[in-house]
Amino acid sequence: MSSERLIYLPLGGAGEVGMNAYVYGYGPKNRERYILVDIGVTFPDMDGTPGVDLIMADIAWLEERRDRLEAIFITHAHEDHVGGLGHLWSRLRAPVYTRDFTARIAIKKMIEAGQPADQVITVGAMPDTVELGPFRVQFVPVSHSLPEASGLLIETPAGRILHTGDFKLDMAPGVGEPFDEDLFHSIGKRGVKALVCDSTNIFSLHPGRSESSLPTAITELVRGAEGMVVATTFASNVARVRTLAKAARAAGRSVCLLGRAMQTMVRTATEAKLLHDFPPTVSAEEAKDIPRESLMLIVTGSQGERRAASAQLSRGSYLGFTLKEGDLFLFSSMTIPGNERGVLKIVNAYSEMGVDVVDNTQGAFHVSGHANRPDLERMHDLVRPQMLIPMHGEHRHLRQHARLGAARGITTAIAPNGTMLDLTGAEPVVAEYIDTGRLYLDGTAIYGAMDGVVRERMKLALNGHVVVTLIIDEDGLPMGEAWADCQGLAREGRARRPLAEVIEEELGAELERVGRKILASDDRLSETLKRRVRHVCVDQIGKKPEVTIVISRLSDE
Amino acid sequence: MSSERLIYLPLGGAGEVGMNAYVYGYGPKNRERYILVDIGVTFPDMDGTPGVDLIMADIAWLEERRDRLEAIFITHAHEDHVGGLGHLWSRLRAPVYTRDFTARIAIKKMIEAGQPADQVITVGAMPDTVELGPFRVQFVPVSHSLPEASGLLIETPAGRILHTGDFKLDMAPGVGEPFDEDLFHSIGKRGVKALVCDSTNIFSLHPGRSESSLPTAITELVRGAEGMVVATTFASNVARVRTLAKAARAAGRSVCLLGRAMQTMVRTATEAKLLHDFPPTVSAEEAKDIPRESLMLIVTGSQGERRAASAQLSRGSYLGFTLKEGDLFLFSSMTIPGNERGVLKIVNAYSEMGVDVVDNTQGAFHVSGHANRPDLERMHDLVRPQMLIPMHGEHRHLRQHARLGAARGITTAIAPNGTMLDLTGAEPVVAEYIDTGRLYLDGTAIYGAMDGVVRERMKLALNGHVVVTLIIDEDGLPMGEAWADCQGLAREGRARRPLAEVIEEELGAELERVGRKILASDDRLSETLKRRVRHVCVDQIGKKPEVTIVISRLSDE
Repeated sequence: MSSERLIYLPLGGAGEVGMNAYVYGYGPKNRERYILVDIGVTFPDMDGTPGVDLIMADIAWLEERRDRLEAIFITHAHEDHVGGLGHLWSRLRAPVYTRDFTARIAIKKMIEAGQPADQVITVGAMPDTVELGPFRVQFVPVSHSLPEASGLLIETPAGRILHTGDFKLDMAPGVGEPFDEDLFHSIGKRGVKALVCDSTNIFSLHPGRSESSLPTAITELVRGAEGMVVATTFASNVARVRTLAKAARAAGRSVCLLGRAMQTMVRTATEAKLLHDFPPTVSAEEAKDIPRESLMLIVTGSQGERRAASAQLSRGSYLGFTLKEGDLFLFSSMTIPGNERGVLKIVNAYSEMGVDVVDNTQGAFHVSGHANRPDLERMHDLVRPQMLIPMHGEHRHLRQHARLGAARGITTAIAPNGTMLDLTGAEPVVAEYIDTGRLYLDGTAIYGAMDGVVRERMKLALNGHVVVTLIIDEDGLPMGEAWADCQGLAREGRARRPLAEVIEEELGAELERVGRKILASDDRLSETLKRRVRHVCVDQIGKKPEVTIVISRLSDE
Repeated sequence: MSSERLIYLPLGGAGEVGMNAYVYGYGPKNRERYILVDIGVTFPDMDGTPGVDLIMADIAWLEERRDRLEAIFITHAHEDHVGGLGHLWSRLRAPVYTRDFTARIAIKKMIEAGQPADQVITVGAMPDTVELGPFRVQFVPVSHSLPEASGLLIETPAGRILHTGDFKLDMAPGVGEPFDEDLFHSIGKRGVKALVCDSTNIFSLHPGRSESSLPTAITELVRGAEGMVVATTFASNVARVRTLAKAARAAGRSVCLLGRAMQTMVRTATEAKLLHDFPPTVSAEEAKDIPRESLMLIVTGSQGERRAASAQLSRGSYLGFTLKEGDLFLFSSMTIPGNERGVLKIVNAYSEMGVDVVDNTQGAFHVSGHANRPDLERMHDLVRPQMLIPMHGEHRHLRQHARLGAARGITTAIAPNGTMLDLTGAEPVVAEYIDTGRLYLDGTAIYGAMDGVVRERMKLALNGHVVVTLIIDEDGLPMGEAWADCQGLAREGRARRPLAEVIEEELGAELERVGRKILASDDRLSETLKRRVRHVCVDQIGKKPEVTIVISRLSDE
């Protein structure tokens, strides 16, 4: 019973594309030593999380066991892998291991959150090895859409796990290491117990294309442009940013980087000596003196984010730059599902200005950073694992990836967030289901998704809010009239008079009717008034608002 | 100066895909007689219109001139063309002309809204003609994704307008008239001044496919299924519903239609004698006794609508039906941009149940109802109009369609909502810009998009709401303490104590500081307290909430 076991427990990332957080454990049952792989965020939307700033995996399970947490490993510098570090590190207090470029980003996050930067430890790619408790961990370079992305080779007494992180098979990614098939083949030959594998692009049926397939088309596009050219992409995709910048130079244009993230990423990659041949750029100030046909802006906001440079330009101007008829805007990106409305809003605003918008519809100006289905098959073939555990995807991705593996004769398991798998034996076995959830960062507060805060907001947004105040005098009788304030409700209803006025009138009638007993009880009086307000609103505007009743009793004082 | 003119004025539909409403006018300037073509809705979303039920074009301009409105013409029965009729008819009070199938739907809408059904007048397709004032109007059959869709041939003393409505070039649409190239060619030969043309699919570069290309693939899919099969599509696409039903029968399955719209549409099309060979169906009650492998459900909810059958099934059950491992769910539809999140939520819920979801990713199970770019070119060629006015699209669609026309030597104009074009001369000329907008149906109330109601709701949802009540006694001094109620805000902040408690404490301190002058003024006291609440919240939770201050003065009574 007390024999040692190897477990896998996703707290985030196995049920969504985003907020990656995977626990591995080894040791006697319930006394395992742990490592956490990645601690990312996902992004809120008005549909389900209005007013929230960031969403992270709830790490309560691990927090309770942090005395047995050896370390946090970060595979790469994307927000959905490292974005939660600053906000959650103080709950875990374990050293953070990662490679140079990622470490630079991770340190920024620690400092911004007032956490100790020296907890971030920079390590090299394999053969460098981090030995901690029962784990020997090596960073395995993979190609992705930013520098120094890595898989993790995790050796334990129960066998070797290859955790891919995000990856694609790109033999010429521009910046960062090419995908090294021989390396993965050799890792596979040593024997891999479990391949824990990115599932993001399982529904893309064609082999992925290389970053190196883009420069020609992009350069040609920029060369053909007449007015100002503005391009956007993910700032962390510095290979792409460089391609865009080089295209500008090839077309005789000066390059100006706009948006904080864009400048930070290029600077960081340069400092990490990953971007040795980035073309010279000009500052926003300098750019203003350059004729528009000789200028290219590379800006943040490929997902239509309201505050990013692309959106601000579409609303009029950004740092004094304005677009106009004859200019060209390039989305060197794809739209993440859920962001369509925001992106189209920008596209239509540009259309009204007469700006030509070019996107990746025809496939010439962007490539994905994730392995497509045939590429995943290639990975399975290279590694030949004993078992395949799909990760990083919504349930549909995990399920399809598991099917793909099963169809090719590999033992697989679908393990959504909270599913603890025991990987010790020949097949993955569900050991336990853990309560998982989401944490919301909202301003500076962090609370649970199920705490009801956002549910209250959604109700206010859907139903509007009526606040009623009433004073009960020393004799237990209403003093003056009830007063109503309406927010987010039609100003007038059927009666063609202000809604608040009609509510107050009806409450007045109600108060004349109710007896002493009800007046004496805050709860019963509130309930009576609330019911009346709802009734009036249904009658007047066909809607049941949220209602807050505030009763002040002079006798209480 | 008082010579007669022909005008075109889109109030809705030229700036969005949805809420179509186009005015044509003929006569002396500002004394024109008018017709309105379509009166549709568009659908709200949590992003921008939380709690709203429907969105319609603001018809205030036309309402002010309704004594000169001859009639309303409805091209077809889709909600974005007829959905506003019941809600807005009483503001216009003009007779409604349309063809049989559409009339049946229009009459339902009038009756539901308590409007006179006899104002809907059924007319036949051309050569039937409606003559009203300076207009002679004929319904020109087109193929689309529901029966009896029509363009309008509008003859005026200044020339002939061909308003296409929604259309595609389908020579075998299954139900309803095939697209008749000869007819359009002959209309073109008689001379068309302006082609006012659907732009929805301008960005689809391949020729559209026929409805008749689907039955084989769908039948094969259903034949290969083992468990229960559930399929969804737009209910109004009765040709598709029939294809789905026939596929079920071919696979030896009974067919059950679920969802109100599904039943209404099939019944209406049958009553209109458009669906003579629809296979027999079983009721939900009967279906429960049929083994799942012998059953196919055809359900509403192709866009992930929360209350539709598809979504309810994904949450557990609908009318006693539940899905399980081995069942198949088919989206015989495409996802309208903006609805992705809702649809994916359903897909992932089905994935968790082990239900296989098939959608149109590979193009085999759905065709669009709109003309693609090459089809639009074909339409231009058939009609050879003097001018092309793109309609029914976001700005980017209108602009691209205009470019297409211009590139082919046709005079065009981009006329977004509110742009009144004078079509009298050889070229379209902007005569005037009209203030247009959107109306929101919210419960039973209708108000303007700019009235601030929804803006209040969004603020409540993004920022949360603090309500503060305070009583000022007869002496002008605070009586007891200020009381705070928080909604949609983190329960605790930095102080690790209930936020409302901290707010009340700080307000207490503030009230001790403020002087008589401020206490005497509701406005100044409110402002002071509001500022204090915001300040506390920023300090505690990093967020500025909406604040309502209610001050009750005993001296007022």
